[in-house]
Amino acid sequence: MAGIFDQDLGRNEANFAPISPLSFIERAAEVYPQRTAVVHGSLRRTWAETYARCRQLASALTNAGLGKGDTVAVMLPNTPPMVEAHFGIPMAGAVLNALNTRLDAEAIAFMLDHGEAKLVIVDPEFAPVMDRALALRQSKRELRVIDAEAGYEDFIAAGDPGFAWQLPADEWDAIALNYTSGTTGNPKGVVYHHRGAAINAISNILEWDMPKHPVYLWTLPMFHCNGWCFPWAIAARAGVNVCLRKVEAQAIIDAIKAHGVTHYCGAPIVHGMLVNAPDELKQGLPAGVKAMVAGAAPPASLIEGMEKLGFDLTHVYGLTEVYGPATACAKHEEWDGLDIGERARLNARQGVRYHLQRSARVIDPQTMQPVAMDGETMGEIMFRGNITMKGYLKNPKATAEAFAGGWYHTGDLAVQFPDGYIKIKDRSKDIIISGGENISSIEVEDVLYRHPDVLAAAVVAKPDPKWGETPCAFVELKAGSALTAEELVAHCRKHLAGFKVPKAVVFGELPKTSTGKIQKVELRKKAGSAAAIDV
Amino acid sequence: MAGIFDQDLGRNEANFAPISPLSFIERAAEVYPQRTAVVHGSLRRTWAETYARCRQLASALTNAGLGKGDTVAVMLPNTPPMVEAHFGIPMAGAVLNALNTRLDAEAIAFMLDHGEAKLVIVDPEFAPVMDRALALRQSKRELRVIDAEAGYEDFIAAGDPGFAWQLPADEWDAIALNYTSGTTGNPKGVVYHHRGAAINAISNILEWDMPKHPVYLWTLPMFHCNGWCFPWAIAARAGVNVCLRKVEAQAIIDAIKAHGVTHYCGAPIVHGMLVNAPDELKQGLPAGVKAMVAGAAPPASLIEGMEKLGFDLTHVYGLTEVYGPATACAKHEEWDGLDIGERARLNARQGVRYHLQRSARVIDPQTMQPVAMDGETMGEIMFRGNITMKGYLKNPKATAEAFAGGWYHTGDLAVQFPDGYIKIKDRSKDIIISGGENISSIEVEDVLYRHPDVLAAAVVAKPDPKWGETPCAFVELKAGSALTAEELVAHCRKHLAGFKVPKAVVFGELPKTSTGKIQKVELRKKAGSAAAIDV
Repeated sequence: MAGIFDQDLGRNEANFAPISPLSFIERAAEVYPQRTAVVHGSLRRTWAETYARCRQLASALTNAGLGKGDTVAVMLPNTPPMVEAHFGIPMAGAVLNALNTRLDAEAIAFMLDHGEAKLVIVDPEFAPVMDRALALRQSKRELRVIDAEAGYEDFIAAGDPGFAWQLPADEWDAIALNYTSGTTGNPKGVVYHHRGAAINAISNILEWDMPKHPVYLWTLPMFHCNGWCFPWAIAARAGVNVCLRKVEAQAIIDAIKAHGVTHYCGAPIVHGMLVNAPDELKQGLPAGVKAMVAGAAPPASLIEGMEKLGFDLTHVYGLTEVYGPATACAKHEEWDGLDIGERARLNARQGVRYHLQRSARVIDPQTMQPVAMDGETMGEIMFRGNITMKGYLKNPKATAEAFAGGWYHTGDLAVQFPDGYIKIKDRSKDIIISGGENISSIEVEDVLYRHPDVLAAAVVAKPDPKWGETPCAFVELKAGSALTAEELVAHCRKHLAGFKVPKAVVFGELPKTSTGKIQKVELRKKAGSAAAIDV
Repeated sequence: MAGIFDQDLGRNEANFAPISPLSFIERAAEVYPQRTAVVHGSLRRTWAETYARCRQLASALTNAGLGKGDTVAVMLPNTPPMVEAHFGIPMAGAVLNALNTRLDAEAIAFMLDHGEAKLVIVDPEFAPVMDRALALRQSKRELRVIDAEAGYEDFIAAGDPGFAWQLPADEWDAIALNYTSGTTGNPKGVVYHHRGAAINAISNILEWDMPKHPVYLWTLPMFHCNGWCFPWAIAARAGVNVCLRKVEAQAIIDAIKAHGVTHYCGAPIVHGMLVNAPDELKQGLPAGVKAMVAGAAPPASLIEGMEKLGFDLTHVYGLTEVYGPATACAKHEEWDGLDIGERARLNARQGVRYHLQRSARVIDPQTMQPVAMDGETMGEIMFRGNITMKGYLKNPKATAEAFAGGWYHTGDLAVQFPDGYIKIKDRSKDIIISGGENISSIEVEDVLYRHPDVLAAAVVAKPDPKWGETPCAFVELKAGSALTAEELVAHCRKHLAGFKVPKAVVFGELPKTSTGKIQKVELRKKAGSAAAIDV
C-alpha cells in the first residue's frame, strides 16, 4: 500500500519539468537580454540575439525535417556557430555531434557513418578534410552539408526567431554525442543526456564559485566533451563567451586583456603558453583570473608560474564518459601556508568527486570493493551518478563493460589518500614493468618536470631484452636550454629508485592531440625503434 | 520504434542517482570534514561531527521503527537539532514536519493528527504548548515525544554514527511537510520532494552567487519553508550555520560581528531591526553582507538604510508551495546610477523566476493565457517547474485546484512589466473595492511607507455604508514621531487618487506572524469595529 505521501501527489505540468540546459539560455535571454553573450573579433551579440539565432537554427532544422533523436554533426572551431549549436540543435530535439577538428578524414567518415548524421555544419577551415571524409563514407544515408559561413547564415535566416521549441519529453533524452579519441580500435560514441549536461554545467559553477556574468575565454575546444559543458554553464550565468579560433599565446593574452576575461580552461600546455610567454606580452594581464587545468596534473613549475601571474588554478580530472571534469582537487586554506613543492604535490592529485556527481572512488576491479584510503593501495578510479554518460552508441557490449558492477570504470589506476583525495598512479596502459617491478610513468614524469629546463615530458616503456621493459623519456626542453641527457638522468637519480630512472632519453617536440594531451601511443611506437640516447 | 539514442542506453546504478540534498552533507563531510558546520553560543561542530550526528539520528529513528513515508515532527527554534533534523530525518526515509513554533496548541494538535506524526522532537521552550497540543489530539496513533535537550542527546547517542543511510528510491519521494499558515479554514500540508529541495537549494546559491564556506546567520525560522531550503544550501557550500534562538537586534548584530556573517534572510522587519538599531550598536558591522528579503517589498527607506550599512539586499518572493523563494528581483548594473526612489521602485518588484524554476508568469486565471507585459494588465502569478510542491497532503481537491491548467496558482494578483519583471498588485483577498473601484492595498501601503516617520503600515478594507468598503490604514510610527493622522492623510493625497486615500488611520504596533508578516486578518477584524481615527 502506498503511504500518505505517495497518494494523489504525482507529477504534472505544474510541478515537474525535465532538467535541461536549454532552460538556461531561455532565462539568460529573458532576464539579461541586453548583456553580451558572444564576442568574436569585432562581433558582439547579446543574449537576446544569441537566443533568437538558436531558435532560428532549431526552426530551420525542424523545417529541414530533423527532429528527436536525429544527429546533427558540426566540425567547427570555437566560433559563434559552435556556441549556437549547443542550444539550437537540441532545441530541435536533435543530438549535437561535435567532431574533433584535428581528426583525419577516415576518422570523421567513421563518425558520420556510425552516428548516422543527417546534417553537418562545417567551418571553411575544415572543408578539405570534410570533403575527403564525405568521399570515404560507407553509408548511403543522405547527409546535408552546410558551410559555417554564408551557408549557415542563409540556413538560419529562414528559421523563425520566435520558434516555440520544446523541452525534451524526458530529461534522459540524448543531447550530445561525443566520440572518444580511441587509442585502439574504432572510436566509441559517448551519449550525453539533458539531465547530465545541466547538472555538470551547474557543478562547474559550484566548483569555481562562478558569479553571474563571467567572461569566459574559449581556449578549451568545444568539441571536447562539449567544452566540459561550459557552453551551458556560461548561459546559466548569463556570461560572455569570448570565442577564439586559434589557441596561441598572443591571441590568449590579447583576449584576456581586451575583454576582461575572468575564467578559462585548458590542458597544461595552454597554461604553459601563458606562463612561458615573454614578459612584455604578459604586462597588463589582470590578476585573479580563474583557470581550470586537466589532461595531466599541473607540475610545480606551472603552479608557481600561475601564482606569479596572480591566476587561480584549479586542477580537475575527467573523461569524455563523465561529461568532462568529474573530480576536482578542491583546495583548503591550510594549504596556502605550505611550500610550493608540497602544494604542487597536493594539487597534483585528481581530488574528490565533482559537486553534483554521486561518487568517485578507487575500487578494486576484481572484488569491486573500495580500496583502503592509505595513499598506497592501488585500484581503478570509478564513478557513479548523474554526471555519467547514457552509454556508448550502438555498442551495448562496451556499455555493459564500462558499467560493470554498477560503476563506470575509467581504466585509470590510482590510490586514495586518508583525506579521500584520489591520485592517479597510471592509466593501466601506462604502467612500465621492468624486471617484474611496476614503474609508474607518471611518477617518473613528475620528476622530469621538476627540472627547470623541462617544458614537457612523457615516459613510456621501451622493449628491453634483459628487463622486459625499461622507462624511455621523451623530453621537450625550454628554448635556449643546453641540458644533456646525462644531466637529466643525474637529476632523476636524485629523486627516483634506480630501476625507475629512464634508460633512454629522447629530446624533441612531443606529439600532442588537439586537446593538448601528449600522444603516448606515438611515443610508444618511437620507443620501439627510436634513435634514443641510451644512458 | 525507438531511435538509436534510446537503445541499450538506459538507467543503471552507474549513470543515475536520485537528486537529493542529502548528497550535499555527505560531500561536505567528505571534502571538508574539519570545517565548521554549526555555531551556537559557545558550541562549535564540524561537518564531520554534524554528519555523524545526523547519521546517528537516522539510525536511532530506524531503530525506533520509523522508515519511508513516516512523519517526524519537530517544534524547534533555530538550534543545532533543527539543522540536524533536515538531514537525519530524511536519511531514515522519513518526512520532516517542522512546526511553526508560534502556533497555538489547537493548530499544533491539528497538524500532528493530520500529518500522522509518529515522533516529535520538542524544544523545552515549547513544551507547555506541546503538552496542551498532545491533550487536544484526536488521533489514537502512538506519538513518541522527545525533549530536544537531554532526551534528544540520549536518543541519538544510541544511534550509529556510521549508519549506512540510503538515498531515496525515487527523487520524487517526500522529504518535508510544511503546513501553510492558513488564514481561513484548516492549514494545508504542503509536501516537498528530494528533487525540489535540492534544486531550490542550488537556486539559492546561484541567485546569491554564494561562494564556498559562507557564514549564514539563522534569522529566518527553519520551520518556514524549511528555511527557504537554506539548511541544504549551506551544506552544499560547506558553510557555517550560525544558530540563533531569538531574533533580536542585539543578538543579530553581535552574531554578525562575532562570526563574520556573510549571508542572512528575513522579512523586512528583520532588516529593519538592523537599519533602525542605535548607531553605537551598528559600529563595527562588516560591509558586504548579503541579505535576502521577502514577505513584503522592501520600502525605499529600508533599501537606503541597508545601503548605508553597506549591505547588499536582494528581494525575493515566494510561498510555501514553491519551497520559499521562487522569484528574485534580479538586479542590473544600469540600476546603480538611478536615484533611490527609482531603485526602490524597481527593487520593490517581485522580479523574475528563480534560477532553476521552469517558469513564473502572470496569467489570466479565466483564459489561462499570459497577460500582456505592459505593467498594467492584471493577472495571477503562476509557477511551473521543479520548485513546486508535490501537492497538499490528503487533499486531492485542493491540489487539483492549485494546479488547475498545469500551473500552480498563487492567488497573488500582479502585472508584468515589459522587462518581464512581475509586480504584485495585491493578494486577491487584499483588494479593497470602494464604490465599485478596485483599490490595491499594497499601492496605498507603498505611499504610507514613503513617509519618513512610518516604521510599518498595512491597509485593509473597512466596511462602509456608502462605499461598500474604504481603505483603513494601520500604522506603526518610528520612536519619537508626533505625526498626526491628518498629516499622514495629507501625504497620501499628494500621491494617490482621492478614492484610494485612507478614510481611517489607526496608530499602534502591528500584529505580526512569527515570520514577520503583518497579520492582515487581525487588522480586518479590527477594521470592522476599531477605534479608528476617521479622517
